[in-house]
Amino acid sequence: VSDDLRYVLDLEALRALVQRYARAADARDYDAMAELFHPDAEIDGLWGASPLDEYLDRLRTTPAAYDQSMHTLGDPLVELEPGADVASLDTYAVVYQLASREDGSNATMGMRYFDEVERRDGRWRIRRRRTEMRWVTK
Amino acid sequence: VSDDLRYVLDLEALRALVQRYARAADARDYDAMAELFHPDAEIDGLWGASPLDEYLDRLRTTPAAYDQSMHTLGDPLVELEPGADVASLDTYAVVYQLASREDGSNATMGMRYFDEVERRDGRWRIRRRRTEMRWVTK
Amino acid sequence: VSDDLRYVLDLEALRALVQRYARAADARDYDAMAELFHPDAEIDGLWGASPLDEYLDRLRTTPAAYDQSMHTLGDPLVELEPGADVASLDTYAVVYQLASREDGSNATMGMRYFDEVERRDGRWRIRRRRTEMRWVTK
Repeated sequence: VSDDLRYVLDLEALRALVQRYARAADARDYDAMAELFHPDAEIDGLWGASPLDEYLDRLRTTPAAYDQSMHTLGDPLVELEPGADVASLDTYAVVYQLASREDGSNATMGMRYFDEVERRDGRWRIRRRRTEMRWVTK
Repeated sequence: VSDDLRYVLDLEALRALVQRYARAADARDYDAMAELFHPDAEIDGLWGASPLDEYLDRLRTTPAAYDQSMHTLGDPLVELEPGADVASLDTYAVVYQLASREDGSNATMGMRYFDEVERRDGRWRIRRRRTEMRWVTK
Repeated sequence: VSDDLRYVLDLEALRALVQRYARAADARDYDAMAELFHPDAEIDGLWGASPLDEYLDRLRTTPAAYDQSMHTLGDPLVELEPGADVASLDTYAVVYQLASREDGSNATMGMRYFDEVERRDGRWRIRRRRTEMRWVTK
């Protein structure tokens, strides 16, 4: 496989990686979510920075404020040198949170995901994610 | 063309297929829509499952409840073995329905399209679509 | 590089081009925005048709009505003959305008970007953009 072909194959793998994240998050399937990160990954999100395990534990044990979510993602803007094993992704997301159990309201959030990804053993996963909440409407 | 190159060419063709669907739906161009499905396709949507012809007839003869629509799609998550002639697509969509003739209100729907697609005579089309409405806000 | 491989590399470059536009617009970085167009480009937008320089000057000198924006884009539908140096893009966009300084309200716009792009000196840029506002909700 040439470097050029490897490059487009890698872009497709990275695009699928963030789409899989959306589906795991919306299904609240935290085992599927864990598969998308390297075990030593760090997530810097709404709760500050934490290692992957802590982050997932917190998701698993925190009662969901909303009945369901839908993570709609734009195409990631990818910085990748052809042939490299690391890349940076910048993904726009609009996250719909729906039908709160507590007060019946909805929330829509404008997010931006900044991911550092790495290929290990032939497989791309996230090693660091920083999320930025740009706006929220209720 | 190698299997790897065929794979990325197929992903691009499938991506364009769902984008063409959005444009045909928003233009209410049901002939253009028909071109995206195999003649024996089945659509399992808001009205239950029906063959393509019945589904299109119903679209053609039902007065539109809204003046215009905009089908915004996320990138499809595609399951495709390199070289295969069948694939599965899972596409997130936010559908805006605007300016109702009846009551002036708008509706926004969170949808998910599950497509089984097949290449026949070198051309990818949908042979089965199942749609899932996840939420609607008015 | 074969024509088929060139084709998918070009699609990736064009996809990144429109994603870079979203980021430049949201950062109000008009120098970064200028880099995405050929110097002789024309933009036919909300203010009518104008050359790139006039358009950018107007953006630079017009006080922003909103505090921030988020341009979320669907995947562009690309018309490109393998090996060609020109292409047409049709991109759906939902543009969120937020936290108006004037009246505190938000606006969401359904847009469609029609871009004619050209490769010069090995680099794709926009030579003509026509924007269509399909709807706006406040």
